[in-house]
Amino acid sequence: MSANTFGHLFRFTTFGESHGPAIGCVVDGTPPRLPLSEADIQAYLDKRRPGQSRFTTQRREPDTVRILSGVLDGLTTGAPIGLLIENQDARSKDYETLKDRFRPGHADYTYHRKYGIRDHRGGGRASARETAMRVAAGAIARIILGDAINIRGALVQIGPHSIDRNRWDWSAVDANPFWCPDADAAEQWADYLDDIRKSGSSTGAVIEVTASGVPAGLGAPVYGKLDAELAHAMMGINAVKGVEIGAGFGDAALEGGENADRMYMDGDTVAFRSNHAGGTLGGISTGQDIVLRFAVKPTSSIAQSVETVTVDGQDSEIATKGRHDLCVGIRAVPVGEAMMACVLADHLLRHRAQCGS
Amino acid sequence: MSANTFGHLFRFTTFGESHGPAIGCVVDGTPPRLPLSEADIQAYLDKRRPGQSRFTTQRREPDTVRILSGVLDGLTTGAPIGLLIENQDARSKDYETLKDRFRPGHADYTYHRKYGIRDHRGGGRASARETAMRVAAGAIARIILGDAINIRGALVQIGPHSIDRNRWDWSAVDANPFWCPDADAAEQWADYLDDIRKSGSSTGAVIEVTASGVPAGLGAPVYGKLDAELAHAMMGINAVKGVEIGAGFGDAALEGGENADRMYMDGDTVAFRSNHAGGTLGGISTGQDIVLRFAVKPTSSIAQSVETVTVDGQDSEIATKGRHDLCVGIRAVPVGEAMMACVLADHLLRHRAQCGS
Amino acid sequence: MSANTFGHLFRFTTFGESHGPAIGCVVDGTPPRLPLSEADIQAYLDKRRPGQSRFTTQRREPDTVRILSGVLDGLTTGAPIGLLIENQDARSKDYETLKDRFRPGHADYTYHRKYGIRDHRGGGRASARETAMRVAAGAIARIILGDAINIRGALVQIGPHSIDRNRWDWSAVDANPFWCPDADAAEQWADYLDDIRKSGSSTGAVIEVTASGVPAGLGAPVYGKLDAELAHAMMGINAVKGVEIGAGFGDAALEGGENADRMYMDGDTVAFRSNHAGGTLGGISTGQDIVLRFAVKPTSSIAQSVETVTVDGQDSEIATKGRHDLCVGIRAVPVGEAMMACVLADHLLRHRAQCGS
Amino acid sequence: MSANTFGHLFRFTTFGESHGPAIGCVVDGTPPRLPLSEADIQAYLDKRRPGQSRFTTQRREPDTVRILSGVLDGLTTGAPIGLLIENQDARSKDYETLKDRFRPGHADYTYHRKYGIRDHRGGGRASARETAMRVAAGAIARIILGDAINIRGALVQIGPHSIDRNRWDWSAVDANPFWCPDADAAEQWADYLDDIRKSGSSTGAVIEVTASGVPAGLGAPVYGKLDAELAHAMMGINAVKGVEIGAGFGDAALEGGENADRMYMDGDTVAFRSNHAGGTLGGISTGQDIVLRFAVKPTSSIAQSVETVTVDGQDSEIATKGRHDLCVGIRAVPVGEAMMACVLADHLLRHRAQCGS
Repeated sequence: MSANTFGHLFRFTTFGESHGPAIGCVVDGTPPRLPLSEADIQAYLDKRRPGQSRFTTQRREPDTVRILSGVLDGLTTGAPIGLLIENQDARSKDYETLKDRFRPGHADYTYHRKYGIRDHRGGGRASARETAMRVAAGAIARIILGDAINIRGALVQIGPHSIDRNRWDWSAVDANPFWCPDADAAEQWADYLDDIRKSGSSTGAVIEVTASGVPAGLGAPVYGKLDAELAHAMMGINAVKGVEIGAGFGDAALEGGENADRMYMDGDTVAFRSNHAGGTLGGISTGQDIVLRFAVKPTSSIAQSVETVTVDGQDSEIATKGRHDLCVGIRAVPVGEAMMACVLADHLLRHRAQCGS
Repeated sequence: MSANTFGHLFRFTTFGESHGPAIGCVVDGTPPRLPLSEADIQAYLDKRRPGQSRFTTQRREPDTVRILSGVLDGLTTGAPIGLLIENQDARSKDYETLKDRFRPGHADYTYHRKYGIRDHRGGGRASARETAMRVAAGAIARIILGDAINIRGALVQIGPHSIDRNRWDWSAVDANPFWCPDADAAEQWADYLDDIRKSGSSTGAVIEVTASGVPAGLGAPVYGKLDAELAHAMMGINAVKGVEIGAGFGDAALEGGENADRMYMDGDTVAFRSNHAGGTLGGISTGQDIVLRFAVKPTSSIAQSVETVTVDGQDSEIATKGRHDLCVGIRAVPVGEAMMACVLADHLLRHRAQCGS
Repeated sequence: MSANTFGHLFRFTTFGESHGPAIGCVVDGTPPRLPLSEADIQAYLDKRRPGQSRFTTQRREPDTVRILSGVLDGLTTGAPIGLLIENQDARSKDYETLKDRFRPGHADYTYHRKYGIRDHRGGGRASARETAMRVAAGAIARIILGDAINIRGALVQIGPHSIDRNRWDWSAVDANPFWCPDADAAEQWADYLDDIRKSGSSTGAVIEVTASGVPAGLGAPVYGKLDAELAHAMMGINAVKGVEIGAGFGDAALEGGENADRMYMDGDTVAFRSNHAGGTLGGISTGQDIVLRFAVKPTSSIAQSVETVTVDGQDSEIATKGRHDLCVGIRAVPVGEAMMACVLADHLLRHRAQCGS
Repeated sequence: MSANTFGHLFRFTTFGESHGPAIGCVVDGTPPRLPLSEADIQAYLDKRRPGQSRFTTQRREPDTVRILSGVLDGLTTGAPIGLLIENQDARSKDYETLKDRFRPGHADYTYHRKYGIRDHRGGGRASARETAMRVAAGAIARIILGDAINIRGALVQIGPHSIDRNRWDWSAVDANPFWCPDADAAEQWADYLDDIRKSGSSTGAVIEVTASGVPAGLGAPVYGKLDAELAHAMMGINAVKGVEIGAGFGDAALEGGENADRMYMDGDTVAFRSNHAGGTLGGISTGQDIVLRFAVKPTSSIAQSVETVTVDGQDSEIATKGRHDLCVGIRAVPVGEAMMACVLADHLLRHRAQCGS
């Protein structure tokens, strides 16, 4: 019952604001005697790090993580793992204009209404900076899951421009600044985003995250369903407005005969002719790939001037300065992967608890 | 950390299988001295009850609920409220063919893989029958929320057929068997579903649920976000494959300037020019209507014969007999409303705990 | 975060008042494919049942339990197990005098202050009747623990009269109405309690509960310590005022050299020269017997007239009629055993989750 | 379901080992707009700090706490409060002899059995050093409770030497190195402990903690009882072996008429003739002082040589070097106060959630 804790058996608790001295995380429930180093975590943080292309925020944060506890001689001890990243490049003065008015579409207004106080500097707790800690926790989750489970994310739409799924190539994902599996689309996107920048606007995106090698049986009906917890995980990422599993919203238009993933024996193994289910049935994994997508809205901090109100209740306008992502969807790719890893690791432990393997 | 419990402060725990002697629920955390009678709950159960039109399952269940505890002289006492519905019309023999094979798209297979045992009769625990208890809990949640908060659901798409939102009329919703706000669409849907029945198939749907009158400030960043918990709640309903809030997946295609819900003062009150956000920013309610949609896949139990495998690992086929919903989306409308009510009631109490009002 | 739920992975949620239609319980997290019948549970309920000697309440409750879900063909399915006991012999009119005044030492007053409403009939939710469901859950917990773990309780003090530990004989426990391991003491106690009854009073007791065969390694530092959760479990039983593990309060008077349980190798096994620790170190089981004691205060419902106040704030007196236990400690023995079983089963699953065996 | 998290609505999560780089804590659920500075926390940390007299460990730790998040301009924001203390004076080489053998009575052995790995340096996670973070969280809890609630602890027994309760003087508590309310006893204790040190041993103690000004109505029956959660809190402190509330174990020897805390009207207020209950009935506060005691065993790290076994399963002996407390009970006083504050703050928020004030 903590708003800043995610997960049940594998669980992490985060703290820290965008412009505070540091952000941090406590990862609890990790099995003992797993190999873990700061480098294991840093590799994923580097993927999410800002300022790696002209399409993401130019804030320069090395995001160097320190492990403060829970690891001895390179092995987890079963004790909680404390992680800390010190903030380096916080320019709070860029945010002075945000002190007395609200960015439409931003959490500025709702934090003000909920708490009667808000840390306006860089979005405070609502900043996407918090997601660095999800990525760190996700790196540990991957170690629990082991090499047999492979989690990968990709950007499949940016603004109105979708990829051509026939050109899907996982090797392209690391070769462009968008994590885009369609190399041709990536080129088109670069131009599109340059235009968006010039217009002082921003844009939305759709991310797809896949997990291969997940054994059948993970998930906990009826309120701890694997897909429900994945939906929770993804919808909780900053700016996400929709989540779908497998055929998702497209499933609504199908007939039962079309949707059914026919089953057959492939030697001794149960196999499926299709994967409309996206790897879960009744909230439990089938053994097929877990496939989900989530939609990210356009960044609400934009250079364009927008009608708004002040903290004192006056009509006003706002044009946001500071260094912002043109499309927060890009850096949401490693975050979505991390949340997938965390949910699966949690369910792996929960399944072992109840069912013994 | 219970798979059969939903919520944090307002929380309910359900039990029972489709063909067992009874289904039940314990609702905990209800404030004391609220008026509550069985009739208050029954009204919503009747809305979900099977067999009310030719488009839903013909199983005849009166779904009569008994309050076993937590209420004295018509008022809640603050003690847990035990609820019980005895099953009446369970024809387990209809399900004998399901004993040794799996329905593609159904939880049959995954329960088998997870637990090594499954109650095949009517879907056991995975049956939509469980949702009766969500509706019962939702009825209590509505009493906590009070009359100022109004929660309503509607079916906005069935198969490939969407409503015309220009014809939206809440008064139409109770006047057709689909909870459809577009009277013309409802007539079209009746014909479409009759065709689906004749073909031995089933179909999917999209449901929209709205909550009006929700005060600003509900929600708990960053892992207890209102929208994230709503996504969890809706994705956890049987057969749901996607959830979106506000503009949802459509938001991905927008630019920041288009998406921003401009703010202005309407007298002393902050108002918004649009509601792309769907009533939440940063996981906290804005005071605008909460608006979400969820997609339901077609019923996996269909009369058409479908390729499958047996429990013993043989290729086989299955054509499901028994009494099933042509479109589980129809009866999911009151369930979606109930889950919205439960999430909001929980957050109302959580907000009061931390912020004091 | 539910006040009516106990445990984490093996957890149960209870409901019901002393004079309501029924009491019930949902047991969640049970591993699948364990043999379970109503008779397995009834055996322990019978041990706790009222009216079995002249020393306990004369209320006649058969306490017949029904399993409503979660079991198929005599095996657990992994789904929640719903349990129900209908109340039979509730004479609410005996309690009319309690409606407008408070029994000193009873929860009457505090429920009134907390909730502004209370079910005065037989103590409502605060009645020891609720403990029947703890015993039922404990019976299931024992099945999870298996035969290698043996949990036994005994009454070791009643009023000022302690047993002689040199006469401890487990076989005596079932041969007297007090679960007393010292047959001589039991005879003395019978006389003592007859005197207590004649004086219209009641008396306290101390219960000792032991678990043998618990493997080393159960427990979860630092806030989920085995001994801390046992303390929670026992202190939460009605009328309990103190809990101690191993040497307990006596430990305070010892020097480090006296207290240390010296370790040595007994063949390949680590053994201990003593068990001051009571089977836990650092909140984790050592493999020695878990040994704890808890103190029960005298029943607060007594025939003697006692100074009190009314609901309306007037000075008054009260002499409690109705059928009450002379010493609630007697029937607390099976309850303490049950709570021990529940805590251990929960930790067994939690240990398996994190440490894998 | 985290072993390193305490509390429900007001909750904290700790991490860190005795000889790691730092220990830390995340405090979640704090209401917004409360005044909070590092000095508020430091004041209580200084009370617990080692090396303040010759009777506690000579390790020199300034225990300087940093607030990393959740506070803006001296006010809480409602966001999680990250706290960090860097370890300064860790002499790990003192612990080399502990690497291959177990201290009888210490968690060395059980961590080894549970995790198959242990941080032997200074007790690792099992070190009482972790309790610094409980004290820090307790300081924040006190701010939530406000000035009307006064929490005080005292040492009432050391080894076999109890205080004379007739000499109880709260002002004496801060005037001796034992937090002893009986100035005469404190002098006697100094001599006793000097003897203990010379003999290379250690000793146990009993601590009493009182909370005044607690309103009636806090507590959450039946498994979230105030006294049960206090028992959990206190038994979870390092080396604690017993907890009692009010008359505690002494209650077992009383008759009902003796134990009843008679009630009368003191003007418009309900008053009590005695407080055997220790301020709770049915797990809910009565408005009287909450009074509890807990017993601490003698420190298990002693200079005397004691029979033990090695990690490799050989008989051996151990005499612990390093800097240890002669009586961990002394520094447990502020820890017990802190845990009392945390439990009460949690219940204050929980009560407000359900009952609205």
